Amino acid sequence: MRIGIVGTGIVGRTLGTRLAKLGHDVRMGSRTTGGEKARTWVKQTGGKSSEGTLADATAHAEIVFNCTPGNVSIEALSAAGAKNLEGKTLIDVSNPIDFSKGMPPTLSVCNTDSLGEQIQRAFPTAHVVKSLNTVTAAVMADPSIIPGVHDMFVSGNDAKAKGQVVDLLKTGFGWKEVIDLGDITAARAQEMLLPLWLRLYTKFQTPNVNVHVAR
Amino acid sequence: MRIGIVGTGIVGRTLGTRLAKLGHDVRMGSRTTGGEKARTWVKQTGGKSSEGTLADATAHAEIVFNCTPGNVSIEALSAAGAKNLEGKTLIDVSNPIDFSKGMPPTLSVCNTDSLGEQIQRAFPTAHVVKSLNTVTAAVMADPSIIPGVHDMFVSGNDAKAKGQVVDLLKTGFGWKEVIDLGDITAARAQEMLLPLWLRLYTKFQTPNVNVHVAR
Repeated sequence: MRIGIVGTGIVGRTLGTRLAKLGHDVRMGSRTTGGEKARTWVKQTGGKSSEGTLADATAHAEIVFNCTPGNVSIEALSAAGAKNLEGKTLIDVSNPIDFSKGMPPTLSVCNTDSLGEQIQRAFPTAHVVKSLNTVTAAVMADPSIIPGVHDMFVSGNDAKAKGQVVDLLKTGFGWKEVIDLGDITAARAQEMLLPLWLRLYTKFQTPNVNVHVAR
Repeated sequence: MRIGIVGTGIVGRTLGTRLAKLGHDVRMGSRTTGGEKARTWVKQTGGKSSEGTLADATAHAEIVFNCTPGNVSIEALSAAGAKNLEGKTLIDVSNPIDFSKGMPPTLSVCNTDSLGEQIQRAFPTAHVVKSLNTVTAAVMADPSIIPGVHDMFVSGNDAKAKGQVVDLLKTGFGWKEVIDLGDITAARAQEMLLPLWLRLYTKFQTPNVNVHVAR
């Protein structure tokens, strides 16, 4: 599948590498083409991997991953172009983390709205699916890093797009349990897990923590 | 131990019954003494159980449970009297749920503050420990209702009070894993789990859901 990655940070590169290893045609998008992080990633990844502008990456793609920091997500996706997201599955991995008020960071939006919903409203013809934001980059791409049973969540308004993401998470990345929380308003619940994750990270001194839903 | 329960709703009655069965001397407090719910609870519970005003219940107690709805917690604890909470462990079980904006309910405070912190600020000489708010009443008192491993969280500023609560949760109620998230500001993380819990409740059609931290 042709996959576009918006954002060349650790999340974008980790997911991009995993997707390329799975045989997908992955294009990494940055603000300007030929940046060092993107070029190094292409060199190290090989295969069908490529890099370009945000518009290049999304125009190329059947599925787009938003891997930008939450505070610049809408700006980056706008630069990619609404037209290039039209009718496509847009997996929103970002968290609305606000470091401006000191530590621990807070959320720039929560409770009555979410970044997932903001992105869906800004790009109404894209099929936004919120997922993967509840774990660290390495665990997103390889859940077996954390021993035992632990779960991933998805939410979104388009059932077909969600099904596509669930399939990719399970058969591609190896997630055993993927829980569909409902429409994109459930992104609030997913993003509001961040404070717990940060506390657990501090307590256990490892980013390799996640939750399992017992029932 | 002498235990005071503030609030005669399902949470207060469920915890009160469990604590009485464990042999504790439990007094249920209501706004006015002799209310039907409290009298019925005493009759059904027997043993050393008793009921009275909010001040009666807290004055009597070595440990106090706040089992009121979040929107009236500070008012109810004020009616109980700051003096009656002084130097005591105050287990805050409440959630700041706001139904006024329709369904799903939102939180009346979150992200940069929490109800646990508000209560600690309002009653600075009490040792507030946030716990149990992340599960339904029956599970609080008997975690074995949910099969498999699942966890309880505590937070608070006073290590001795937290230790007392952890001991009660483990040896009294049967919680196997109790995770200390830090000081009372971690109540934000505990209360912000509510949106996820509500989604899981809707999805799985049972209130008997909880999380386990995999690491």
